[in-house]
Amino acid sequence: MSIMSSEINEQADAISATLANLRNSRLEVEQLFSGAQSVLFMARGTSDHVADYGQYLLSTKAGVLAASGSPSLATAFDAKVDLSHHVVIGISQSGSTTEIVESLAWAKRLGAKTLALTNLANSPITEGADLTLLTYAGVERAVPATKTFSSAMAAMAWVASSLSAGSLDDELSRLPDLAREVLAAPLHLGEIERAIGSAHTLVVSGRGFGQSVAREIALKLKECALINASGLSFADLRHGPVAVFSQGFPLISLGLSSTSPLLTGLHDLQRAAHQAGAPIINIGGVSAPGIPTHQIPLPELPDELLPILQVIPGQKIAERIAIARGFNPDEPRGLNKVTQTV
Amino acid sequence: MSIMSSEINEQADAISATLANLRNSRLEVEQLFSGAQSVLFMARGTSDHVADYGQYLLSTKAGVLAASGSPSLATAFDAKVDLSHHVVIGISQSGSTTEIVESLAWAKRLGAKTLALTNLANSPITEGADLTLLTYAGVERAVPATKTFSSAMAAMAWVASSLSAGSLDDELSRLPDLAREVLAAPLHLGEIERAIGSAHTLVVSGRGFGQSVAREIALKLKECALINASGLSFADLRHGPVAVFSQGFPLISLGLSSTSPLLTGLHDLQRAAHQAGAPIINIGGVSAPGIPTHQIPLPELPDELLPILQVIPGQKIAERIAIARGFNPDEPRGLNKVTQTV
Repeated sequence: MSIMSSEINEQADAISATLANLRNSRLEVEQLFSGAQSVLFMARGTSDHVADYGQYLLSTKAGVLAASGSPSLATAFDAKVDLSHHVVIGISQSGSTTEIVESLAWAKRLGAKTLALTNLANSPITEGADLTLLTYAGVERAVPATKTFSSAMAAMAWVASSLSAGSLDDELSRLPDLAREVLAAPLHLGEIERAIGSAHTLVVSGRGFGQSVAREIALKLKECALINASGLSFADLRHGPVAVFSQGFPLISLGLSSTSPLLTGLHDLQRAAHQAGAPIINIGGVSAPGIPTHQIPLPELPDELLPILQVIPGQKIAERIAIARGFNPDEPRGLNKVTQTV
Repeated sequence: MSIMSSEINEQADAISATLANLRNSRLEVEQLFSGAQSVLFMARGTSDHVADYGQYLLSTKAGVLAASGSPSLATAFDAKVDLSHHVVIGISQSGSTTEIVESLAWAKRLGAKTLALTNLANSPITEGADLTLLTYAGVERAVPATKTFSSAMAAMAWVASSLSAGSLDDELSRLPDLAREVLAAPLHLGEIERAIGSAHTLVVSGRGFGQSVAREIALKLKECALINASGLSFADLRHGPVAVFSQGFPLISLGLSSTSPLLTGLHDLQRAAHQAGAPIINIGGVSAPGIPTHQIPLPELPDELLPILQVIPGQKIAERIAIARGFNPDEPRGLNKVTQTV
């Protein structure tokens, strides 16, 4: 069994430990965000997908507009902007990605309040942070991040809940058990493997809260299985990329609850992909009626939290296809655990 | 000859007309941005690539942090955030993309000052705008946007120049002639076509100001040639996707000036791609010494403006490969000129 596979299975415990340890930081989080007029995330790779999720959560739950920033504004261009009304959130699993460490220091110099989210206490990123929140995922040894990702997603959901009078607290308390349930459920990986076949490219699509996990699953497929997968919102797909479905390569879609305002768009995408001959794997939520999909059922959860469960089957698929194609998912070619950008 | 090809050739005139017509709006732009603490772009598809460019330009030139927003925050989630210190910029070539029109109206309701950038006077997007800036690209008939894209890029550069005491004015005044020069230069498309071969996927990479055009060229390749191209910053590539180069598929890179702080990263990417056996096509700027690339030379221009020239060979490559593969570049399957997101 791969290390990645073991770490996938540790996710329920990692989420549980993370949420338990955050409990005492609620007041500090409220104080940090008090009076903020904008939130800016600084992150790369998997952590940037946590930022993508955090953007939607804070903008819809916390009454403050959140967006993603480009680390090069800090590290390459040293942009002179006024950040005195901003909270800047740096996310780095290792806490050592130099450009994120530098981005937080840059933000602090420009007047921002700064928050670090990391899996490693006392790591360099915490030095430039007014407040540090830790995930408790334990040491992660496989290069593709899995348990640090879902723990950081849970931490972001907890931040959003903290800033909205605990609006997600009840569902968050159920999350570890639900993750355990998903990890134990049969997944029919052989069937999914056949659907993907020998594809060297595919599309993973979600929207809103789930766009983050669409991008994350696409990244796992790139890292582990060397499939050049695109992770895209289905709104963006309609603005051009939808044309590529005529090649008939697979679609992995992230389902939505039956009450999501985005459901029609998801179903339209599934219909378009099906018409183009693409096999469809849909993870969780509700698929378009009458369209054949490999449906991976998940427990019911509000759309705000569902992505944290949706990533699990995606990780398992990437690991399985890596092994089927003769790659070692734990050590993808050309990648290291701590990534530095030159 | 395709309509797309004619419209590519109209770009120098379109940029020239756009810049001439903006000249009288400088004071209004200064007033709109006065006191702004954040800038948020709302756009989709090709227009979102203009927004990506505008983000870097405004953040580095105008002293105000700019970022991209998600239209679904307005249209699907009706997020209740305070935008009274924001300028929100909506970009839509047609001025009729409903979700961008609605996003500007949402921003206005929440207290933002609003700016519309469009190619069509009196189009719906202008109704929710405190200020409208027009591109003068004329009617665009091919579905893949070309001249409306480069005109909107030039307009964004002009906005950044206006907010930084005319810092880019001199170079902007040379831009139409330089674009004319690039349009007239021989491009050796046959050689590039052979380098791309029968690839169904590839990577287009730039960073900073050029990330926008990397994403735009990738989109043209998707729309016209049905190649599932990824448009990525080379910093993001290192955080995972670089693994896919071991498949040996092509890299199109966007060159940088010899003084760019990002040059080392670009050259590292080119070395990694070359080692993995990927053919490399580099557009403009300076390539890594000793690495064989199909180099497309461009006139010298500061990194802030170079992307407006770099897109031109990218458009020509996409059009050529479309025709070589038997597709009609003017009318890609599944796409319409005005895209609506459901």
